[in-house]
Amino acid sequence: MALLVQKYGGTSVGSVERIHAVAERIGSYRDRGDQVVVVVSAMSGETNRLETLGHEVSEYPSAREMDVLLASGEQVSIALLSMALIDRGYKGCSFLADQVGIVTDANHRRARIQSIETRLLRKALEEERVPVIAGFQGIDEHGNLTTLGRGGSDTSAVAVAATLGADECQIFTDVDGVCTADPRIVSRAQRLDQITFEEMLELASLGSKILHPRSVEFAGKYQVPLRVLSSFEDGPGTLITKESSDMEQPIVSGVAHTRDEAKLTIAGVPDVPGVASKILSPVGHAGLEVDMIVQNTGADGLTDFTFTVKRDDYDRALGILDNVRETLGAREVSGDNRIAKVSVVGVGMRSHAGVAAKMFDALAAENINIQMISTSEIKISVVVAERYLELAVRAVHSAFELGEAPVDKDD
Amino acid sequence: MALLVQKYGGTSVGSVERIHAVAERIGSYRDRGDQVVVVVSAMSGETNRLETLGHEVSEYPSAREMDVLLASGEQVSIALLSMALIDRGYKGCSFLADQVGIVTDANHRRARIQSIETRLLRKALEEERVPVIAGFQGIDEHGNLTTLGRGGSDTSAVAVAATLGADECQIFTDVDGVCTADPRIVSRAQRLDQITFEEMLELASLGSKILHPRSVEFAGKYQVPLRVLSSFEDGPGTLITKESSDMEQPIVSGVAHTRDEAKLTIAGVPDVPGVASKILSPVGHAGLEVDMIVQNTGADGLTDFTFTVKRDDYDRALGILDNVRETLGAREVSGDNRIAKVSVVGVGMRSHAGVAAKMFDALAAENINIQMISTSEIKISVVVAERYLELAVRAVHSAFELGEAPVDKDD
Repeated sequence: MALLVQKYGGTSVGSVERIHAVAERIGSYRDRGDQVVVVVSAMSGETNRLETLGHEVSEYPSAREMDVLLASGEQVSIALLSMALIDRGYKGCSFLADQVGIVTDANHRRARIQSIETRLLRKALEEERVPVIAGFQGIDEHGNLTTLGRGGSDTSAVAVAATLGADECQIFTDVDGVCTADPRIVSRAQRLDQITFEEMLELASLGSKILHPRSVEFAGKYQVPLRVLSSFEDGPGTLITKESSDMEQPIVSGVAHTRDEAKLTIAGVPDVPGVASKILSPVGHAGLEVDMIVQNTGADGLTDFTFTVKRDDYDRALGILDNVRETLGAREVSGDNRIAKVSVVGVGMRSHAGVAAKMFDALAAENINIQMISTSEIKISVVVAERYLELAVRAVHSAFELGEAPVDKDD
Repeated sequence: MALLVQKYGGTSVGSVERIHAVAERIGSYRDRGDQVVVVVSAMSGETNRLETLGHEVSEYPSAREMDVLLASGEQVSIALLSMALIDRGYKGCSFLADQVGIVTDANHRRARIQSIETRLLRKALEEERVPVIAGFQGIDEHGNLTTLGRGGSDTSAVAVAATLGADECQIFTDVDGVCTADPRIVSRAQRLDQITFEEMLELASLGSKILHPRSVEFAGKYQVPLRVLSSFEDGPGTLITKESSDMEQPIVSGVAHTRDEAKLTIAGVPDVPGVASKILSPVGHAGLEVDMIVQNTGADGLTDFTFTVKRDDYDRALGILDNVRETLGAREVSGDNRIAKVSVVGVGMRSHAGVAAKMFDALAAENINIQMISTSEIKISVVVAERYLELAVRAVHSAFELGEAPVDKDD
């Protein structure tokens, strides 16, 4: 008998039939004796519908009121799922965020969870109930409704699991686990049985859409074993957990990619101390997120400065850089919004030299030019022209033999 | 400068355009210096949509979860109306029932308000805000969501007005006030400028759909001046208030009618003590509401017992009476589900004899047979065949000269 927190996303509760399928699944865990706490998202399409409605009423809708509006979506799905559970004889019982005391900071639309009360949840579990909690929402210290931002229900689930000391937090989604690469690009991609929080965090941040990065961060911080599973078919999924000594680490666990990138270069900048800050501060102040940064200094005392932003922010970033160029007396501003990023991730690469070389060799063998490089302890990312994206992912996946050796370690 | 509680129903906030029109109207009250607290219903059609969804998931949905589901409708409308107010520069601020502490008993789907906290509302008013409160919903003492039953937003508004000691509770709706009769039946029906709580309560209970009876009861109990106004056009509406000595009372204020009635007769019942209870108890236990009751005793020691129920309950009531007939050894059970009820209401009739005679004369003059009669201090109701309904309403309206004399007393 285990204490499980199960999160079902919008697609999993997207229709009356699917809600019943989820109730059926939860029931099967109850039948074998597990305690189950459920966290659900709004029915698929509902959050978009509500957001559109809000924007129809106001061009710049109040963030506080937008949170009140959006939070109603989860209220609907917790009620419906609880009804479906009760219909099957399980003691489903819905809880809104304020009813379980999910307290966040006051940052509307991107609030962060600060604490969760457990008294009512524990009481409900003692009474053999199945608490069905509204994900995505919280209340601030003054009782105002808040929301955690898109994908926030994953974070709600992990936070609830951490607070209750659950044995596992299970994220039910529309894929059967985390793969060595996107199966739509690499046909030989394999489901991973296990992966570390650090690796998953890199994968989540790098564009693998399965989990919200903050939920992985949270799970790692509080050491909550996290499992990604399919809500449509049975299977072991992928367990995301801390690195253990008996975990035989592959050098590279997976290849991630992201498409919506753009790079900007400001060239011929007088290379004096503080110049990086003068370039990036206005970009940051405008609310644009900067990802990779590269600086080259030439012999002439001038420097070229390149960084990447989200593709949607490309035009705004170009405008800002034009101003910066004038202020700094730089030579020119150029850019490219047809780039993509390919990354290999793996805690094993810490102790293995030569991972970068192997990756670069694989790309060179396909005549793919590397435009930028960025590395962390467990990740190497390169920027390539977008048209080479699929070829690059397949080349790297193959170089590290991710599709060939069995990566499942449990069977 | 007055403190006003304004309630807008589902039709008034039924679209983005109408929400803006309501915000505009609220703004005009703010501009002239009034403090306004707003109570809103769900957008029209929304409660039905949610209820249908609940019934799609479960044939007999949990009442607790149905309340969670339905309450989401008002959450949407308070957010949207607050956004529209903020857009116009007014400090709109939504409040869910639990955020203003609208505490009810624990009877899901037909809860009764027990108390409302005023601290946050008063603070909001001091800060020049326009609180926009979700009608229809509350929380019980354990923090479970409850709803007040259909039409419950009227009651929410009156309760908020009573608690705040508001100068007036204004119910904005799709008619321009309370009329002497249904204008669709009586073309000469006139809007009443003023009417007493008692009269309105009789009218509300008798089928005038403008106000929820409980809201009128509540307003009378706490002496909250209640005004019914059109949310689509300007006008004074109808003020519902306590009877005052300087209020020149017409003998009859209005004619009400209700169509969805049915009557049942159990004939030849041995007339012994307790027989009425033996007939009505099983009907009450089955949850059927009995309205009028008439008993005639003949010379043979047998009695005929007739009562009315809602037309929807007719078949069930017939079945129950068949059983009762056997138990009591009564002669026969008969019924008629094509009847209607016509009533005259007026506090003035207390001191005037002859009101009943005038009503019966008017009906006799049209050859309308009266099947049952029921009276209260300020009301006389008769049951007639449904096909005579319109004719009866017009005859009575005309007999009391309701369409001829100006009933407006302020102009």
